[in-house]
Amino acid sequence: MRYYPDPAQNPDLKVINSAIEEAFAEHGRGNVQMPPKSYIFFDKGDFRTMPAYIPSLEIAGVKVVNVHPDNRDHGLPTVMALLIIIDPETGFPSAIINATKLTDLRTAAAGAVAAKHLAPKKSVIMGVMGSGNQAKAQIAATAAGIEIEEIKVWSRNEKNAEKLCEIYREYECRTESPKKVCDCDLLVTTTPSVKPIVKDEWIREGTHINAIGADAPGKQEIEESILKRSTVIVDDYAQALHSGEINIPIGSGYYTKEEISGTIGEYVLGRKSRKNSSEITLFDSTGLAIQDLAIARTVLESDNTVELSFP
Amino acid sequence: MRYYPDPAQNPDLKVINSAIEEAFAEHGRGNVQMPPKSYIFFDKGDFRTMPAYIPSLEIAGVKVVNVHPDNRDHGLPTVMALLIIIDPETGFPSAIINATKLTDLRTAAAGAVAAKHLAPKKSVIMGVMGSGNQAKAQIAATAAGIEIEEIKVWSRNEKNAEKLCEIYREYECRTESPKKVCDCDLLVTTTPSVKPIVKDEWIREGTHINAIGADAPGKQEIEESILKRSTVIVDDYAQALHSGEINIPIGSGYYTKEEISGTIGEYVLGRKSRKNSSEITLFDSTGLAIQDLAIARTVLESDNTVELSFP
Repeated sequence: MRYYPDPAQNPDLKVINSAIEEAFAEHGRGNVQMPPKSYIFFDKGDFRTMPAYIPSLEIAGVKVVNVHPDNRDHGLPTVMALLIIIDPETGFPSAIINATKLTDLRTAAAGAVAAKHLAPKKSVIMGVMGSGNQAKAQIAATAAGIEIEEIKVWSRNEKNAEKLCEIYREYECRTESPKKVCDCDLLVTTTPSVKPIVKDEWIREGTHINAIGADAPGKQEIEESILKRSTVIVDDYAQALHSGEINIPIGSGYYTKEEISGTIGEYVLGRKSRKNSSEITLFDSTGLAIQDLAIARTVLESDNTVELSFP
Repeated sequence: MRYYPDPAQNPDLKVINSAIEEAFAEHGRGNVQMPPKSYIFFDKGDFRTMPAYIPSLEIAGVKVVNVHPDNRDHGLPTVMALLIIIDPETGFPSAIINATKLTDLRTAAAGAVAAKHLAPKKSVIMGVMGSGNQAKAQIAATAAGIEIEEIKVWSRNEKNAEKLCEIYREYECRTESPKKVCDCDLLVTTTPSVKPIVKDEWIREGTHINAIGADAPGKQEIEESILKRSTVIVDDYAQALHSGEINIPIGSGYYTKEEISGTIGEYVLGRKSRKNSSEITLFDSTGLAIQDLAIARTVLESDNTVELSFP
């Protein structure tokens, strides 16, 4: 049994994007096992258990990940993750992986894969709502997949938005008002918002939206009426209905499961595709356990490991 | 984050029995969180993910445990377990525990706790079906809780049964036919059987049965008609209905949920109790994630750990 303290130090984002794309494809083919996430609730946060198995990659395991919004007070990240890799042949837990950084990377890769298959153009103007780790990771992953002409960023924290733009100066990155950020080809929302921050009237025809932030019941970033004029693609039906961008409008009955167009796996496989350049498409990403397994596959050969005696 | 490669080297079985008793009591009080076990299925086995939280003990975590019946061919145990301990305050994974041995111990302790509260006498003749690790552990845990006058063992593997008796010679342990083993005060079944091995006609009034072996759909050790003349106690309704001794008769409709008397937690709390010395009682043990947390609590102070860098 090996422990991986710091995997993906110099990640190859193209490799990661491909791994996530393959995981979605296997999901689309119905070739994975992925029981629903389990939640344990604490006063100050929660932790989630995410088991899965991808037979074609011969990899199985379970991610354990917390969300504690006040953790900065303790000098700890809000989100920390461990991934246990199980050998399908014997059940032996062959690896324990520090998956905190991998979680950011695999979430970003999901956005990149969706942008590749759903953006209206090969070369896009990218709008980013939010300026945290995930905003940064989304830009990097997307840039590894498609061409970015220009980036506009809005964040409640203006200084943070400016810092983010400094990193991506090569893409003419600048801060803008929310309205101007939303005037783009590829909009990515990465905030922890529980109230819509993207207004319907700001979204023009042809936009592809990656709705990343909402990953728990009660979270929402997009004004609901946008769903009605969009083609909505989920990563997984059960997870999206429970905790994705659509969870609140589904709960209220404003939006229904039947209106969802399909899964990203179906789009990756080409069974479904963007109809025309004026269609608004929206990818509701909640984060799947199979993404964690797929990215783990890319780091298992690492030498930076600690051998642990087991059983 | 600390790794515990070999906890409970010299376990104090009285301490462990008390810990498990307290976990059942908290379950009886409704003071725990324990979502259903998740199963991932492989060609040659499965793995289960078992998250839980016991607020009063300030401990939370998740056990990951496999069952691969052919593992002896690989020189590996059939069952291997890892337990991740999560700090409720921050979500930090403070410990990773090799829980293979702890799993045996906590399952045995459940039998001991049930025997303490449900055996017809303070001093018992014990019958044991099966002669594997769990049979051995059940005897040791039970002996730490109540007085054992005599032990009778039956196993498909006669030699193994004799070996087991050698270990417990102080209790006048001897091998017997299944019928004679079942003529006892406390019967413990620990086999992986999928067909009943205990016949109704062999069970006399007043017997307490610890049905330990059945822990997955399709497993069964006890002839179904015994249920009809017994008071049946489960560790947890959802788990017992799904994978306990009663799972097959529940599935066929022969036995119903309404016939179950209650949970072991209710018996530990004294809310329910054995009615008289002629009542047949049957404890259907499936193994709860809260048992794993409770036993982990007893080993966390160990010095035999490896420090791992995280996050």
